[in-house]
Amino acid sequence: MSIIECVPNFSEGRRPEVIQALVTAIQAPGVLLLDHSSDMAHNRSVITVAGAPEAVLEGVFRAAAVAARTIDLFAHRGEHPRIGATDVIPIVPVTGITLAECVILAHRLGKRIGEELGLPVYLYAAAATRPERLRLPDIRRGEFEGLVANMQQPERTPDYGPAQVGPAGAVVVGARPFLVAYNIYLATPQIEIARTIAKQIRESSGGLPAVQAKGFLVEGQAQVSINLLDASVTPLHVVFETVARLASQQHIAIDRSELIGLMPERVMLAAAAHFLKLEGFQSTNTIEGAMRQAAAQQA
Amino acid sequence: MSIIECVPNFSEGRRPEVIQALVTAIQAPGVLLLDHSSDMAHNRSVITVAGAPEAVLEGVFRAAAVAARTIDLFAHRGEHPRIGATDVIPIVPVTGITLAECVILAHRLGKRIGEELGLPVYLYAAAATRPERLRLPDIRRGEFEGLVANMQQPERTPDYGPAQVGPAGAVVVGARPFLVAYNIYLATPQIEIARTIAKQIRESSGGLPAVQAKGFLVEGQAQVSINLLDASVTPLHVVFETVARLASQQHIAIDRSELIGLMPERVMLAAAAHFLKLEGFQSTNTIEGAMRQAAAQQA
Repeated sequence: MSIIECVPNFSEGRRPEVIQALVTAIQAPGVLLLDHSSDMAHNRSVITVAGAPEAVLEGVFRAAAVAARTIDLFAHRGEHPRIGATDVIPIVPVTGITLAECVILAHRLGKRIGEELGLPVYLYAAAATRPERLRLPDIRRGEFEGLVANMQQPERTPDYGPAQVGPAGAVVVGARPFLVAYNIYLATPQIEIARTIAKQIRESSGGLPAVQAKGFLVEGQAQVSINLLDASVTPLHVVFETVARLASQQHIAIDRSELIGLMPERVMLAAAAHFLKLEGFQSTNTIEGAMRQAAAQQA
Repeated sequence: MSIIECVPNFSEGRRPEVIQALVTAIQAPGVLLLDHSSDMAHNRSVITVAGAPEAVLEGVFRAAAVAARTIDLFAHRGEHPRIGATDVIPIVPVTGITLAECVILAHRLGKRIGEELGLPVYLYAAAATRPERLRLPDIRRGEFEGLVANMQQPERTPDYGPAQVGPAGAVVVGARPFLVAYNIYLATPQIEIARTIAKQIRESSGGLPAVQAKGFLVEGQAQVSINLLDASVTPLHVVFETVARLASQQHIAIDRSELIGLMPERVMLAAAAHFLKLEGFQSTNTIEGAMRQAAAQQA
């Protein structure tokens, strides 16, 4: 069975009845609500759902329809940049599906939102159709107000839907790998050590590919806070071992680590196989994995 | 959803048509065949299935019925000790079910085999009703021939079914934790080092609880061969780290390890959480685990 995760962001974080309507609408049959959080200052809500692709696409479409009906960007104020009522819809592969297949799903959902809700849709990240649409901040530059002013310029031509903008603004739909948010606590109160290690491991300063990192002081303990953008590029255990090695060079040990949110099972299985030196381990070497494979072959 | 594994052993390893009939019968709806192997010298077949408890119990009962009809212990010869056509049925918890619940399943299956197939049934391991029936070798002492001679003695009184024995013999049914068969290869050709480490880690010589271990030489490489009888007593990563520590004391590294057969996902997740120092990690911190939990709550 294929499972995708979807993490749509809506430009409403204050009116509980609207937030509740979004959360209700997204739970189409077969859609599992994993998390939702709203921020008053950002005036924004993030809902995390997972399930089979068909179910998730249906649920997210329904929520986007509710958002288009109930959120007016002309009246919206909030700290977070936004371009639409349903601001961004990232589609994420979890199990039994590739990123390339999620790109196709992004096209399907974008086309439906464009046609049935009459909203301009921009495809981003792995689903981008132009290099200048790879990065979300580039698409969102000028926000909703800039879009209203410049909709007719050629660089604003949507991938799907009409080249005109109403109170619901535009929707950005895309596909990206699963993001693992992971913090490592060092056995030291020296934030400088966390900052140095963060700089050493992050891609932007020549470190590990697909790794973002910053150093913080959290309750008196140095923390390396990590966004792992693609665990198939840099496995989580490589991040851990690299931090452990850099810390030990300064005679500091890793105290503990923590996961923010969820991660795919395969990230953990790959880590276990690595540390246990289990060569050639596959998810079908677990009972549950073997059963899923057998069930898929029977279906 | 609850998943059990069941690994019935049948006293037939030579007649392909009987083996095929057993393999066919056991695959009741919802039963997934994970593995089966037959040994000519032992004249014995081991079939590994998994699935929801109801489905697996039905499939194993059907196979036991086939075995009772087609295998004659009076004519059976083989190197492996045996007491019945269906010799032993271990019921093993995998996911969403406890060992105690598997004991109840063993009673249910034993009662049904006793009543419907008219065979004497002995409960063993976690399902044992007497201390002298905890260990399979104790129940099987004297084998089928001894059972025929001594059936009327009080210590032979079955837990279920009649106190009389026919050509299908008796069936031993029980519940036990999942057994992980795991080999660690040392970066040395010295078998003595593997033997020493095996002795240090196995429970029988004062080592780790629930661990059996032996040292071998496999293709010129020292191997510590391990049966981990209960990963909830001694986690797999503790076995690995203990072997690594003992080997390093002799300046030997672990080269690689290998899994024989399958293991439950939770054993791997626990290992990953340990090595990554992820405190408090639970299976519901994976997307797939969170989805299974949500699905179970909706059901």
